[in-house]
Amino acid sequence: MVTPTQGDPDRALVRLSLDERSYDIHITTGEVSRFAECLIGSIPDLSHAIVVADQAVSDLADQIAAGLESQESGIRASRRDVPSGEPSKSIEQFESLLQWILSVGGDRRSVVVAVGGGVIGDLAGFVAASFARGIRLVQVPTTLLSMVDSSVGGKTGVNLPAAKNMVGAFWQPSLVLIDTEVMSTLPQRSYLSGLAEVIKYGVIDDSPFFAWLESNATALVDRNGIALQHAIERSCRSKARVVAEDERETTGRRAILNYGHTFAHAIEANAGYGKLLHGEAVAIGMQMAAQLAVRLQMADSTLLQRQTELIEACQLPTRYDGADPDKMIPVMMRDKKVAYGKLRFVLPTEIGVVELVGGIDEADVRAAIESAS
Amino acid sequence: MVTPTQGDPDRALVRLSLDERSYDIHITTGEVSRFAECLIGSIPDLSHAIVVADQAVSDLADQIAAGLESQESGIRASRRDVPSGEPSKSIEQFESLLQWILSVGGDRRSVVVAVGGGVIGDLAGFVAASFARGIRLVQVPTTLLSMVDSSVGGKTGVNLPAAKNMVGAFWQPSLVLIDTEVMSTLPQRSYLSGLAEVIKYGVIDDSPFFAWLESNATALVDRNGIALQHAIERSCRSKARVVAEDERETTGRRAILNYGHTFAHAIEANAGYGKLLHGEAVAIGMQMAAQLAVRLQMADSTLLQRQTELIEACQLPTRYDGADPDKMIPVMMRDKKVAYGKLRFVLPTEIGVVELVGGIDEADVRAAIESAS
Repeated sequence: MVTPTQGDPDRALVRLSLDERSYDIHITTGEVSRFAECLIGSIPDLSHAIVVADQAVSDLADQIAAGLESQESGIRASRRDVPSGEPSKSIEQFESLLQWILSVGGDRRSVVVAVGGGVIGDLAGFVAASFARGIRLVQVPTTLLSMVDSSVGGKTGVNLPAAKNMVGAFWQPSLVLIDTEVMSTLPQRSYLSGLAEVIKYGVIDDSPFFAWLESNATALVDRNGIALQHAIERSCRSKARVVAEDERETTGRRAILNYGHTFAHAIEANAGYGKLLHGEAVAIGMQMAAQLAVRLQMADSTLLQRQTELIEACQLPTRYDGADPDKMIPVMMRDKKVAYGKLRFVLPTEIGVVELVGGIDEADVRAAIESAS
Repeated sequence: MVTPTQGDPDRALVRLSLDERSYDIHITTGEVSRFAECLIGSIPDLSHAIVVADQAVSDLADQIAAGLESQESGIRASRRDVPSGEPSKSIEQFESLLQWILSVGGDRRSVVVAVGGGVIGDLAGFVAASFARGIRLVQVPTTLLSMVDSSVGGKTGVNLPAAKNMVGAFWQPSLVLIDTEVMSTLPQRSYLSGLAEVIKYGVIDDSPFFAWLESNATALVDRNGIALQHAIERSCRSKARVVAEDERETTGRRAILNYGHTFAHAIEANAGYGKLLHGEAVAIGMQMAAQLAVRLQMADSTLLQRQTELIEACQLPTRYDGADPDKMIPVMMRDKKVAYGKLRFVLPTEIGVVELVGGIDEADVRAAIESAS
C-alpha cells in the first residue's frame, strides 16, 4: 500500500469517520498507475473486483483491472462499461449490472470499483448496496464534480422516469481514489462546472478556503495540479465533516450541502435538462440564494459581491436569462427536500456559515430568482 | 395506541433493540380491528400510508387502510395488491411499485405497510428501503412462517432469475403487527409448514421452549389461539436476540438462524421449487443437520430422537425420499453463505445450543442426506 505521508505534495489523505465505520479518500496527482496497488493494500481479502466504468474512461478502468490481475495476488477482475450519460441511471441498467455480476461469479466478498463521474458512482454504488444485500464499493471519480461531491458521502441511486434519484440507498464506499490527472480528457466546460461545488464548500463551511479560492481562481481555471489537489482536499474535508454529522439526512445538518441546489434543480428543469451543466445551475442557484439572504437582511451585500466575483473568476455563469419564477417555484415545491409542503432554503449569514431557513414568503423567492435572470 | 399490559393473554410485546434503533413486535389474538389505531399510535407523524398487500389478503389490507382513513386523523392511505407467489419477488414488480408510489404522491415521510407473507414482506420491504433512499416500513405478516421469520430482522429483497434473494437490503421495520386470527384462511399445510421454523428456535436457542413445544404440539396443530400466541412470542424473542447480536450477518452469529436451511435450499432445488413447502424442506433439513451432528459425535442420539418426534407431532415430514446427494451437494456449494468455497453447517450440540462448523468431509454430508432420504 502507498502510505500517505504528511507534507507529501503529491498525496493528501482525508478520512471520513462515521459511527462505527470510516474510510479514506486518497487524493493524488500523477499516481494513477498505483491505484491497483493502493486498492490491494486498502481492501482486506480482495479476491474479486467488479470494475464498472463509464465508457468514456474505459481505458482507465482497463488499466486498473489489469493492474489488479498482474500483481500475482490471485485477484480476479471482471470488467464492464456503461454508456455515458444520465439515461444509464435507470432500473434497467441496475438490473442488467446485477445479472452480469451474478454471471461472472460475484459473491458477498466481491468488491465493486466504480470508475467514472456521478452517473457511474450513483449507479454502481446502488448496485453494490443491493447485490447480496450489500457488498463493498470503491469509488474512482473521474470528473471534478464527482471528486468533490458524489463520490464521498454514500448517496447512491438511479432515476425513475418521472423523478431523479428517487430510488437508491445510503451506502458508504470502503475507499475513494482520486487523482487529478484522470481529468485530463475532461472538457473545460465540464471541469469548470465542478468548481461551482468547490466554491460552495467555501461559502457553507470554510471561510479561509473561500479566501484561498479568491487568490487562486486563475490557477484552478488553468488546472494547476497543486492548486487543484488542495481544492479537492479542502472540499472533501468539508463534505466529510458534514456527512459525519448527519449521514442519512435526518437532522437537517446534511441539507447545508444543498446550498444553491433547490434553485439549481428548478433552473435545470426550467431550462430543460442538459442545456445547463449541473455545476452551472448550482452557480446561478447560489447567486439566487445569496440574493435571498441579502434581501432577508440575513447577510450583507459584501457576501453576495465576493461570491459573484469568485464565480465570475471561475468562468461560471452568475445568472440565467430564461429563469422564470412561474416555472421554477412549482418545481421547487416538488423537491424531495420540501418538508411538510413548506420551502426551506440554505442561506448564508456570512462566508463559511449557513442556516436552514423555512417560512419564507414566495414574493421574496420570486425577487431572488428575478435578480439573477 | 393500544398499550400492552403484562399478563394480558391477548397481547404480547417483543422489542427488538439494535444499536440506535429499536422496534416493537405486537402479537395479539382477535385484535385486527385495532391495527389502524395501533399504527397511528406507534408511528410518529403518520400522514400517508402505502398499503401493499398480497392479493389473497386484500380484504385485510382494505380494512387497515379504511381504519387509517376513518380515524379523523387526516391520514391518507394508498392501496395496491400484488399477485400471490414467488414470481412477484422480481425487479419488475419492484420498479412497478416504486413508480406507483411516486404516482400517488409518496414522499420521504410516507410509510409502507406490507400485508402478506414472506413474498410481500421481502418485496415491499425492499421498496421501502429504496424509495427516496429509504422510508419507514410496517410489517403485517399473515402467514405463520412470516410471523416467526421474515417479518422480523430486516432482511428484504427480490430474486434474480438465476438466484433467489440476490438483490436487496437490510432494512428494519418500524413496527411489526401480528394477530393470530389473520391466519384463519391459511391452508393447514401452509400453516404447519410455519411450525418448522418455530421448532428451529427451540433447537438453536431455547431449550425450555423446545420442551414446551413437546407438550403443546397438538394444541399448535389445532391452532389453539393461546398456544399459538405463546409460540410466536417465543420465536420472535429468539429471532430478535440473534438479530440484535449480528444485524448484517457479519459476525457469523446470525447464521445460526439458518439451522437446517443449507440442506433445505438444496432439497427445494432438488425436488423442484413449489413441490415441497419451505417449512417442510426446513423440517427435513433440520433432520439432516441433526443426523450430521450425531454422526460427527457433536450431539447424542437423544437430541435427534426428540427433534424427530416433535417434527412428527407437528405433522411435518422428517425425510424426503427423492433426496439425492449428487444433486444437492453442488447446490449447497453455490449457497450465498458458503465462505471461501467451504461448506459450513449450523449443528446442534444439545437442545438450545448450536455451533457453526466448517471443514466437514463431504462423505459425512452425503451420509447425513442419505439418512433422511
